[in-house]
Amino acid sequence: MPEERIASVAVTRIASGSVTQNEDVLAVEEPLEIRAGEKNVSVTMRTPGDDYDLAAGFLFTEALIRSAEDIESIRHWGSPNVVRVDLRVPIDASKLDRHFYTTSSCGICGKSSIDAVRVIGGGQAILPVHLPKDVIHSLPNLLQQHQSAFRATGGLHGAAVFTSTGDLLRIREDIGRHNAVDKVIGSLFRDGATPLSDSILMVSSRASFELVQKAIVAGIPALASVGAPSTLAVQLAREFGLTLLGFVRDERFNVYSGEVA
Amino acid sequence: MPEERIASVAVTRIASGSVTQNEDVLAVEEPLEIRAGEKNVSVTMRTPGDDYDLAAGFLFTEALIRSAEDIESIRHWGSPNVVRVDLRVPIDASKLDRHFYTTSSCGICGKSSIDAVRVIGGGQAILPVHLPKDVIHSLPNLLQQHQSAFRATGGLHGAAVFTSTGDLLRIREDIGRHNAVDKVIGSLFRDGATPLSDSILMVSSRASFELVQKAIVAGIPALASVGAPSTLAVQLAREFGLTLLGFVRDERFNVYSGEVA
Repeated sequence: MPEERIASVAVTRIASGSVTQNEDVLAVEEPLEIRAGEKNVSVTMRTPGDDYDLAAGFLFTEALIRSAEDIESIRHWGSPNVVRVDLRVPIDASKLDRHFYTTSSCGICGKSSIDAVRVIGGGQAILPVHLPKDVIHSLPNLLQQHQSAFRATGGLHGAAVFTSTGDLLRIREDIGRHNAVDKVIGSLFRDGATPLSDSILMVSSRASFELVQKAIVAGIPALASVGAPSTLAVQLAREFGLTLLGFVRDERFNVYSGEVA
Repeated sequence: MPEERIASVAVTRIASGSVTQNEDVLAVEEPLEIRAGEKNVSVTMRTPGDDYDLAAGFLFTEALIRSAEDIESIRHWGSPNVVRVDLRVPIDASKLDRHFYTTSSCGICGKSSIDAVRVIGGGQAILPVHLPKDVIHSLPNLLQQHQSAFRATGGLHGAAVFTSTGDLLRIREDIGRHNAVDKVIGSLFRDGATPLSDSILMVSSRASFELVQKAIVAGIPALASVGAPSTLAVQLAREFGLTLLGFVRDERFNVYSGEVA
């Protein structure tokens, strides 16, 4: 595990009358500025590490780029907290403005938010995926086993992409759940592995509208979350035919959209 | 509990071989656009309810306004998902740009982020607060008891402000932890109760840089979180003299900054 993701701090532990001085291991949080060429496109509070995956995943899930070929180069730029992506394609400035303006890539009401995703998704069809129950039951443990930084700190979200037969394709961690998803999708995107048909995205967090959006843009047909989904996440998943599973833990889960085998 | 915060959806529950059809209650997620006069200042994915608290709290913790007197009126504006705040003071457009630009009210590196908060905080001194251990041990249960929508859905963050003797001053819930904090601070701000000296903010989530920032701007001398803090949250708390407690649950907690009695 790269040291940059975690750091030690002095802490006083207080428990049932006892007071002890210790070192505690925490998740590192630092801002990352993402640039497309000379243009600032985002600053996000993230855990350092996998910065190139995060930058590529952000540009992809915001539908600013479509393929790994669109990227000419990715590098740190004058600071460990700035990543510059040079592109072979022009950026649609209106999408950038939309992002700055909203912080959440969506419009003003639920309806227009979903319209916005419809545009972003570009009419890409989600193919139904065959997901056996046993595979789904196995995912939370697999996610946790591979979350090395979470085990150390208790403070990091995990996001992993599995095949529909339960094989781990990629896992990433971050202090922000959107960043964890951008990192794992960005990593596979950079390998040319998107759209990720016949796969499932598992997240250690709740499932919000934006996580469903990111899965749809990446062509991932199923999203499973340890926590609860939101109403808008369910609405979006149903509209696009994404299988959405919530409370996936302790050998049980809820199916909010789609079907399992 | 206002119905607008939760909604029923059909769900298939799968657990140890059994498959049942049920209704599940989920947290509502909808975008809220906040306007200062004619100007769009933010769109955030929030749970409806307490929208005026959220709008006021956002403008206050982003240091765009300083006192409840700065607000002439707050009202919904043509949609339940748009709130317009008319102000008696001019808005500093550079702060708005900064917010749009960053999504996280901070600069590019940890150092400059802390500098930014120093500017926002306006040199307001944090007075140390006397916090008995027993009061702190009691906070998680008090928070949970009052989180009515969380109990129903499992999908909402809670934020509550208590006196230093453990009396609940205000509690708010939201699908976003930043929004929950803006709502609870905004509600007290609208009552003219800020700066909130001699109080403690308890959150059901982790403690990030931005939550510490919001506490400092509101003059709250202590922040307690059920989850872990980040490195940058600890650094900021130590710099400003904020008492920061993490993993506050099960009759134990860690002191990352400041002291308890």
